[in-house]
Amino acid sequence: MRANLPVDPARLAADIDGLAAITEPDRPWTRRAFTPIFLEGRAFLEARMREAGLEPRLDAAGNLIGRRAGVKPGLGTIMVGSHSDTVPSGGRYDGIAGVAAGLEVARALTDRGVTLDHDLEVVDCLGEEVTVFGVSCVGSRGMAGLVPEAWLARRDADGRTLPEGIAMVGGDVAKLAQATRDDVRAFLELHIEQGPVLEAEGEDIGVVSAIAGITRFEIVVEGRADHAGTTPMTGRADALVAASRIVGEIRALARGLAAGPEHFAATVGEFAIEPGAANIVPSRTRMLIDARAENRAAMETFAARLAQIAAEVAAAEGVTIAPPGRVSDAMPTPLDPLVIETLAAACDTVGARRRPMASGAGHDTGWMAKIARAGMIFVPCAGGRSHAPEESAEIADVALGAAVLAEAVIRLDKSLQDIREET
Amino acid sequence: MRANLPVDPARLAADIDGLAAITEPDRPWTRRAFTPIFLEGRAFLEARMREAGLEPRLDAAGNLIGRRAGVKPGLGTIMVGSHSDTVPSGGRYDGIAGVAAGLEVARALTDRGVTLDHDLEVVDCLGEEVTVFGVSCVGSRGMAGLVPEAWLARRDADGRTLPEGIAMVGGDVAKLAQATRDDVRAFLELHIEQGPVLEAEGEDIGVVSAIAGITRFEIVVEGRADHAGTTPMTGRADALVAASRIVGEIRALARGLAAGPEHFAATVGEFAIEPGAANIVPSRTRMLIDARAENRAAMETFAARLAQIAAEVAAAEGVTIAPPGRVSDAMPTPLDPLVIETLAAACDTVGARRRPMASGAGHDTGWMAKIARAGMIFVPCAGGRSHAPEESAEIADVALGAAVLAEAVIRLDKSLQDIREET
Repeated sequence: MRANLPVDPARLAADIDGLAAITEPDRPWTRRAFTPIFLEGRAFLEARMREAGLEPRLDAAGNLIGRRAGVKPGLGTIMVGSHSDTVPSGGRYDGIAGVAAGLEVARALTDRGVTLDHDLEVVDCLGEEVTVFGVSCVGSRGMAGLVPEAWLARRDADGRTLPEGIAMVGGDVAKLAQATRDDVRAFLELHIEQGPVLEAEGEDIGVVSAIAGITRFEIVVEGRADHAGTTPMTGRADALVAASRIVGEIRALARGLAAGPEHFAATVGEFAIEPGAANIVPSRTRMLIDARAENRAAMETFAARLAQIAAEVAAAEGVTIAPPGRVSDAMPTPLDPLVIETLAAACDTVGARRRPMASGAGHDTGWMAKIARAGMIFVPCAGGRSHAPEESAEIADVALGAAVLAEAVIRLDKSLQDIREET
Repeated sequence: MRANLPVDPARLAADIDGLAAITEPDRPWTRRAFTPIFLEGRAFLEARMREAGLEPRLDAAGNLIGRRAGVKPGLGTIMVGSHSDTVPSGGRYDGIAGVAAGLEVARALTDRGVTLDHDLEVVDCLGEEVTVFGVSCVGSRGMAGLVPEAWLARRDADGRTLPEGIAMVGGDVAKLAQATRDDVRAFLELHIEQGPVLEAEGEDIGVVSAIAGITRFEIVVEGRADHAGTTPMTGRADALVAASRIVGEIRALARGLAAGPEHFAATVGEFAIEPGAANIVPSRTRMLIDARAENRAAMETFAARLAQIAAEVAAAEGVTIAPPGRVSDAMPTPLDPLVIETLAAACDTVGARRRPMASGAGHDTGWMAKIARAGMIFVPCAGGRSHAPEESAEIADVALGAAVLAEAVIRLDKSLQDIREET
């Protein structure tokens, strides 16, 4: 079956390598949104869209969209895509693979003479990564009508506002409402896993069940600055010792919650002490905890236990710890059951080994799920590495994923017509 | 007995309060060496020396020395003192109490009509605290002939060299050799404890057995930067989790070593992680461990166990940890048995409750011990707090300490003549 894939790995490789060549030369692979090199990448993609028989346009939110009209006008749109922007120094495949897969779906359908009743659109969503304006998923939020008003005042290091950045890309914030979509019946995204599971388990495709919710907690430990030489070991209120215990407890708690079938992870990624002098017992530590849960109940369990841990350590170590505050809190986004089922069936049709999995990272799919039936597949990446120059994926794996998407598009083009959407 | 103390608490209070009034006004109590306000403090002390019948002079190393000649020329000098410089925002008593106690010893002897066979000198050692040049114990090292050549090239934030700083105080680096002393038969220093032990135990005086050695170790943990959302909890090499385990193990180890009769303390005072991003598993941590031991064998035990801990944590957590390096390593300085015995006897004579203790902090006494029989006493300070504006000591406690010093000077003036020093 896999020998008869309708997709062409060489064309996919040409897309991915072509974009990789468009990088800041001194730090590959860098093509951040709202920079001149990003516009070069966009010009490359626009040309590839035309070659694929797609009609490219820029929407008001700065998304590059290539369209192929469907046979039955008014049925709505099936959209496939991801993003072409990168983090600094990071990534030949993150986002790029999904845009290339979208292009290849369009080409493969044309090659096989497949017409669709729905319109098909291939999208390069603007600014999915954290941009120079400090915000992310700009384009997909635009299509969902969910760009916060406050973002429009944000400035980059050069003093440009986000509206100026969007205008530079070709969008127009004054017309942002026109970017909001109510015609997208289904959204599909291929992405590298950014984790090691598929590679380690020898699976081809992860069919994503949900985008995990992300809650960030801050814990501040207040101890007492004492002289490190003269203060006995038993009379201290050492904020670092106390905070270290919390770090260990968080890991143990997260491992317990991750042992079940649903995705859970918790990480202390920011951690700083005061005063930070060799001969002074640390008086204060601040840590930021990033927790991700597919299941909201697991997040609430984590939050409750975290508060207990903080109180227990405070009592044991003679330090003061306020109840952990939530710095941010985003709910998990379950993906669409019909699309999940369709993607799984498509895997079986093209002969791809699959497993369900949650996405621990955020994606454009999470925003598109607000306005459309959304689904997502992961393909393996080497060592689970991403956001780094060594990020790598096999073209054969991306091609297999593109074949899954093509098959899913064909199935959805039919099945979506059998459903009366609740409006 | 304590009602008949030969010292006058009111005079001591006048010295201490007088120096406290000479402070940078916006951050009491600040009188750092090599600053204009420090020279004002020196002028105050010089006047107090003259009032006490002492002949003041500045030596080439910038020490302010008030001298009262002995009855038998050539016997040598008994020196009493400490330092009048402070850390920023820190301390009405640290050092100051010892200089004032030296002055009060001279006054008390005169009041009682006591002549000494030895010369008596009261000293304000230059720059005991970490100075604007980043170095400490400048004056006492000068008297010991142990100012490193490399220090002479050091500059402060204003670009001044250390020799220029010493000249500003009234010393002369070109004549530094003249500051080196071979005539000091005994050196005595009173200091606040800078720890909570005396206050907690209701003791009056700590008779210092040794200045603890200080060894600083650096441990760098190298893990792997993974995506915090997508990397399973079981597949991580989290440098922060590993480092946190080490922090806990160090505390447990240090508590064990401190449980015996000899002073031991270990503190992780510097601790930093990389990359320090909310959504990235920490890839690297660096910590600096400050360990203090009265007994060198205890330090070696600590060092050996620390290396084991690092290796064990590295194996358990899948991270890389090089064997802990020694950033600096200073041996403990045992103080002189005759002086210790004399100070203890003096405590008993004046009715001061005493206990032996090591000094976990460094002091001028540590350097003077290189060239003289040296001894030191601690007096209680509130809550063990020091190097902070709230540092506080009772004048009655300082006065009792000064009485101990006066008694010890009288005893040493005799006993030193019975000893044939090995030369």
